[in-house]
This record gives sequence, structure tokens and C-alpha cells, in this order.
Amino acid sequence: MAPRRTINGFSNPTVKFLRSLRDKKHRRRERKFLAEGLRLLTDARESDVLPEILVMSSGRAPHPLLAELEDAVAAAGGEILEMDEDILAKVTGKENPQAVAGVFAEFDTRLARIDRSTSPIWLVAQALRDPGNLGTMLRTGDAVGAGGLILIDDCADPFSVEAVRASMGAIFTQRLASARWEEFIEWLREGPGQLVAASLRDPTDYRMAPYQAPCFLLVGNESQGLPDTYEAQCDLRVTIPMRGRADSLNAAVAGAVLAYEALARLSD
Amino acid sequence: MAPRRTINGFSNPTVKFLRSLRDKKHRRRERKFLAEGLRLLTDARESDVLPEILVMSSGRAPHPLLAELEDAVAAAGGEILEMDEDILAKVTGKENPQAVAGVFAEFDTRLARIDRSTSPIWLVAQALRDPGNLGTMLRTGDAVGAGGLILIDDCADPFSVEAVRASMGAIFTQRLASARWEEFIEWLREGPGQLVAASLRDPTDYRMAPYQAPCFLLVGNESQGLPDTYEAQCDLRVTIPMRGRADSLNAAVAGAVLAYEALARLSD
Repeated sequence: MAPRRTINGFSNPTVKFLRSLRDKKHRRRERKFLAEGLRLLTDARESDVLPEILVMSSGRAPHPLLAELEDAVAAAGGEILEMDEDILAKVTGKENPQAVAGVFAEFDTRLARIDRSTSPIWLVAQALRDPGNLGTMLRTGDAVGAGGLILIDDCADPFSVEAVRASMGAIFTQRLASARWEEFIEWLREGPGQLVAASLRDPTDYRMAPYQAPCFLLVGNESQGLPDTYEAQCDLRVTIPMRGRADSLNAAVAGAVLAYEALARLSD
Repeated sequence: MAPRRTINGFSNPTVKFLRSLRDKKHRRRERKFLAEGLRLLTDARESDVLPEILVMSSGRAPHPLLAELEDAVAAAGGEILEMDEDILAKVTGKENPQAVAGVFAEFDTRLARIDRSTSPIWLVAQALRDPGNLGTMLRTGDAVGAGGLILIDDCADPFSVEAVRASMGAIFTQRLASARWEEFIEWLREGPGQLVAASLRDPTDYRMAPYQAPCFLLVGNESQGLPDTYEAQCDLRVTIPMRGRADSLNAAVAGAVLAYEALARLSD
């Protein structure tokens, strides 16, 4: 069995460190993030990602997947901590915390790490502000077999607890990159790739558009949509019909409707 | 100009009443809910729904739509309150509150109020727990021209601040009903209507399914999906393909992907 360290007090420096990872400023400095739940941690392990620190509630029920995870973390030289549920609740900020959480090193989010040939679909979000939407886009990306999510300009932090939670593990299975618009366009034009904007203005119906792989589906900010100048640089602008009073969809919903259309059409 | 009452203190009973509407227990008792922002309130007015109480920040900028709203509320015998931004922030629970909010009477959510002939698409959610997902489904419903959203069993409160906010005004344009499963099935079978389950098990691809209007698209709980016995009572079970490691989509995303497919196919 792997060696464990038991944490007894709320004021323990390790507890303070773990709690600080819920705060963006500290995450940025440490370049580490927190993910909760056996399922997420198992998804991570199956994607060959192990936590540097594994945190377990002392009152947890035994589970074979947790035992395997513990062994894997120990074998990789990681740290294993045990603490009471009420201390773990302080760490994760949830009243009924999951029995296990992990501290992971942030991924390298440079565009150069993206190999566009690995998937016919890539999701791209510009100035996406809501971490729940961001996590949901990762989850949708996984579902459509996308390669990953590229974040343009100032987006919500993909390593926040909310985004990681909403991704339902897809943070570990999808590639993640972050870039300014100019940098992204330069990278994109170095190889094959069709850039498709979810437009609120263009008359092209999203069901009639000629999608081509690798297809980069771009969704804009929750309240502003995409800047005109960005849309103009896209290869295709498509519109999802709006039959009601509203003029737009939730950004993650718009991304999903486009992604499933592209998936179906590219599979024909 | 409409008569106004100015509220000066945090401890004013009206402020306490307004704040209490953020709490489900109080909302239930009062059968009233809070909606924020000029845009939402304008959506409401254009749907012939006026707030019983209109709350405005004393530091607001003048706006023609706000002036019209004020007149309409006064003409309907409603109350108009003015308060400092910091008091309004306490009411809405947001640091930078919108300059205007309204207190509305909850709608009648009995199934009997639904006229299924008014739309080819209806969204149905079972045991939906997340108010953001619920509001997003209302918003999507508006976008596809659905008639409304029917909530089955124990769902999140559609009148919570989070759900109202996520609906982006669709809480006022979509019909809303709430019922137990048995009650819903009995009502449904009294007239025409195809009940379509978003299934995680059935092999029928959602793009191949024979949708028929009025089409009731049913999505299940965020973590459990639909109970088997419910799926069995549906006319059609359809599956959205999952190409990755995850076995499900976000519930609001699944509803939207189905709704847009049904919209396109029923419009053919």
C-alpha cells in the first residue's frame, strides 16, 4: 500500500495551499489546478494524466478504482494525503465533497502543441466568460470526437473548479490551447483548416453550409458574439435559425448545435 | 410621471421582502419572483407581463424603454420603488446590479394551461436539477419556436434568479408547466403528440428518427438520465452519438441538439 500523510487541522499549510487553488491568482502562480471526484480522476488516469497530489477523505468507502489510482500516484512519486471530510469540504468549497480530489499540473496550452490532423473537428471560443460554458464546450468536444478547444483572447480560466467540473472529465481528454486572435489566425493559415464562424448576421443556414475537415468551429462571447473583423477573416459564416424573440443561443449550446451538424455532415 | 417611493435603508421591510425572494422557501410562500435588467423586463412587457413592483437604482441613466415601462407599471396599478445602487445590490445579490429589477407574480404552471396546438415542438425535462440548465432550455425553446417547457417530477425552481437569468427573457415568452410523470402522460395521451426520449441506450440515431408534430422532446436528469420505465412509455427513443470517452452530454445541450434536429425535420 502506498504511503499516506494524514492532515488533521484546518490551519495546516497544505490545506491552505489546496484551498488557494480555488483562486485564479494562486492557480496562475502555482500552475496547478484541482479536480474532484473518482470519476474525473479515473478519466485523467485513463488519459495518462496523474495528479501530483491525491487527496482522500478518511471516511471514504473502499473502491478498486481508487486503490489503483493510489498505487499509480505513489508509483509516479506523487503525494497521498488523507483528511477528514470537513477539511476536504473546506478544500473543495462544497458542503458534501466527493471522497477524493487531485492536484494536477496545468497543461501546456500553446497552439504549437495542437496537431490538427488528429481530428476533423476543433472547437474555438472567443472571449468566453462563463467557466460553466467553457467546461460544457470541452464536454461537447469530447462527445463529437473533436480534437480540443482553442480559447481566443480573454476567456474564463479552463482550470477553474467550475470549468473542470462542467467538463465532466473532458479537460483530460480534449486538447486545450489559448491564444490571441492574430496568433491563432497565423497558426491556422500555416496548414489546412476551414474556419467557420457562428454568426448572428450572415444569412447562410448552418444546415446548408459546406463543412470541410479539419473544421474549426468558432463561437463568440456570450453577450457580444464575434467581432465583425473576426467574422470577416473566417472561411464560412453560418447562422443557426432563431424562431423566437431572442437573437442568440447560449454560447455552449450554439457550439454544440454546430458541432453536431458538422459531425453528421463530415461523416456522410 | 408615475409616483415613486424611495427606499433609504438596508433594514427597510421592503428590502427584506425583495431579498427574501432569492430564497426558494420564501418564493414558494409569496408566489412571486425577481427578474433583473431592462432587457428582461422589456421582454416581459412585450409578452404582456408587467411586474407588480418595479425597482430602480437611483443612479440609473435615463432610457426611453425604462420610461415606458414605468408608465405601464403605474397604469396597471403597480408599485415603483427607487433605491441606491448598494441597496439594490443587496436585493439582487450581485455586486454590480442592473439598474432595474421587477417583482412578478409566478405563472400558473398547470398542464391544463398548455395548448399543444400552438407549436410543433415542446421541450420536456425530467428531474432537471440545475437552474442554469433549466433557464438555458427555456432560451433554446424560444430560439426553436417551441411552445414551452414542461418540468416533470422534482426539477430546479424555474423562478429562481439563476434560472430566470439564464433564460434571457424566455421565462416570459415560453409556456411553463410542472407535473408528475403520471399526470403528464395522462394529459399527453388525451390529444395528439409524439413523445421522444433522449436516450442513452436506444440505438436509433437522432438524425434518422421520424419526428412528428406536435413533438414533445424529453430530456432526463443530469446524472441519471431518464428512468427505464419512462423511456418505455415514449413513442420514440433517440440517441445522440457519443464519439469520445464521455457517455452523455450536458442536459441543456442534449435538449438543444434534439430540438434543432426536430425543427429542421419538421420544417422540411
